[in-house]
Amino acid sequence: MEELVTVALDAMGGDNAPGEIVKGGVEAVNARKEVKVLMVGDEALIQEELKKYSYDHERIEVVPTTEVIGNDEHPVNAIRTKTDSSIVRCQRLVKHGEADALVSAGSTGAVLAGGQLIVGRIKGVQRAPLAPLIPTSKGFSLLIDCGANVDARAGHLLQFAQIGSIYMEHIMGVKNPRVAIVNIGAEEEKGNQLVKEAYPLLKECPSINFIGSIEARDIPSGAADVIVCEAFVGNVILKLYEGLGQTLIQKIKASLMSSLKTKIGALFIKSSLKRTLQDFDSSEYGGAPMLGLKGLVVKTHGSSKALEVKHSIIQCISFKEQNINVRIEDVLNQ
Amino acid sequence: MEELVTVALDAMGGDNAPGEIVKGGVEAVNARKEVKVLMVGDEALIQEELKKYSYDHERIEVVPTTEVIGNDEHPVNAIRTKTDSSIVRCQRLVKHGEADALVSAGSTGAVLAGGQLIVGRIKGVQRAPLAPLIPTSKGFSLLIDCGANVDARAGHLLQFAQIGSIYMEHIMGVKNPRVAIVNIGAEEEKGNQLVKEAYPLLKECPSINFIGSIEARDIPSGAADVIVCEAFVGNVILKLYEGLGQTLIQKIKASLMSSLKTKIGALFIKSSLKRTLQDFDSSEYGGAPMLGLKGLVVKTHGSSKALEVKHSIIQCISFKEQNINVRIEDVLNQ
Repeated sequence: MEELVTVALDAMGGDNAPGEIVKGGVEAVNARKEVKVLMVGDEALIQEELKKYSYDHERIEVVPTTEVIGNDEHPVNAIRTKTDSSIVRCQRLVKHGEADALVSAGSTGAVLAGGQLIVGRIKGVQRAPLAPLIPTSKGFSLLIDCGANVDARAGHLLQFAQIGSIYMEHIMGVKNPRVAIVNIGAEEEKGNQLVKEAYPLLKECPSINFIGSIEARDIPSGAADVIVCEAFVGNVILKLYEGLGQTLIQKIKASLMSSLKTKIGALFIKSSLKRTLQDFDSSEYGGAPMLGLKGLVVKTHGSSKALEVKHSIIQCISFKEQNINVRIEDVLNQ
Repeated sequence: MEELVTVALDAMGGDNAPGEIVKGGVEAVNARKEVKVLMVGDEALIQEELKKYSYDHERIEVVPTTEVIGNDEHPVNAIRTKTDSSIVRCQRLVKHGEADALVSAGSTGAVLAGGQLIVGRIKGVQRAPLAPLIPTSKGFSLLIDCGANVDARAGHLLQFAQIGSIYMEHIMGVKNPRVAIVNIGAEEEKGNQLVKEAYPLLKECPSINFIGSIEARDIPSGAADVIVCEAFVGNVILKLYEGLGQTLIQKIKASLMSSLKTKIGALFIKSSLKRTLQDFDSSEYGGAPMLGLKGLVVKTHGSSKALEVKHSIIQCISFKEQNINVRIEDVLNQ
């Protein structure tokens, strides 16, 4: 039997924990025989959920913990004091090599802080970026960095570009991914101080396919595969994507329900429109990986249901199989 | 007869110049008797267009110029060397008090640079922000700053908040407008260095109704009336709004045309859906004002048609009637 990919799953994190989280873990184990899931959290609650399903008992194990970190807690304080929390236990399992990866829908701050402080960075990585996939009309692009460490320097952006390229090429299968830096115009002399400093570094880097600046207007049409930016800007892009998509969809739904005539029309277009809008639903792609760490940390939405949890766990298989961390270490320490 | 509001119109700027620009100018004059329009540009071309319409000849005057600034020219160089260009002439008319405001769909860079360098700032204004209205599910919000001067300091953001509040209250009629700063979380300690410095200044400012941080996710739902940010971030928000809206609308249209069934449905919902999407069309609101200058500078989209030009001109009436610049000067020099 080949080696299993072991994923520590934070069964207590997120709005739908533990029910949907445990369900997603079971579904991943049932879908892919290379996965083993460590369910980390309140043992009684997890067992209660597990009872509902049939699965290979050798590939699901419960790791009991007694604490939970809430979304309203200070991330760094929380991971330092709540050492028996499900998030911290997941991070320790990865740090000590008992798990290859962890998946959590819990406090973003605690997942990111623990990633840096407990799991630790690969040699040569200055900052570990959070890099979600965002939907575009051509498929998806990697937005790197959307993490908690803002005010990056130009050298950090260069590393994000290199790390993001490896991920897109070897996990998502995008050959020679196009890398662009978020800017307020296409010309090389445009931009803020950070972009002006990072641009020449990106242009001269031989290990990436740098295509220049990208204006935010061109992100949704898929004009680049790896979209490099500082975390404050990345966070704005990611959140606006969510907010604007939701607002437009709500308005369209309200418009379809506004009269008898539109309600009749809605019956004809409903399924087609639903498929279209699903393409723009990021939960299809699983969670956001935090890259550059000794192991993979995947942060899924707080509102994650079983499907996203399952996809996030499955994502960890390719990550291990493709030796992503070895590749990152090689490129950054050349 | 009461005093006219004189608007210098850059008849040569934008993708649809001079036809749609001149048409918009005529429509504004015909719609509001308080407006006089100076049509600035190639005299023969303008007269050719004017012939098509009937209007009060006392309230439209042609100001002949010989040069045009293209979108691909370096803005500062262009306004320095092309002194007989339509944009520069418009700016001089405002500077010398021959016009109260100018409207241009031409090169954004040249309009902004000339605003600072030719028209000049009001006393006390450190930077003149570009502040477009963006659509939300409640109506619209003012996004300030989206201009060309990036890397603002905290004191600039405070002024943007004060200037934006005056505009929203006295031009858009929003009483006690809610001011928020774009941030990556709601808590006061979150943010990059700039936001951390600006936050306490905004919190302590008595002339604004500061409600705290706003995450980009909450912008489209109208969670604040005046959205304060540094220009790089503002530009990203504005452009992503455009790009994401267009991409989603294209996808919805394609989905409606995908089968006979959906085509039938589309007939029932077309007019209602069109109205809904129009609410999210920023051209309805006219151009973006550049605030804090001695006179009003309005930048409309490069793709502006007559309707947007007309709205942009009409916007200038309230600006003068409400003495916006006196109010700004008063607040900033208290």
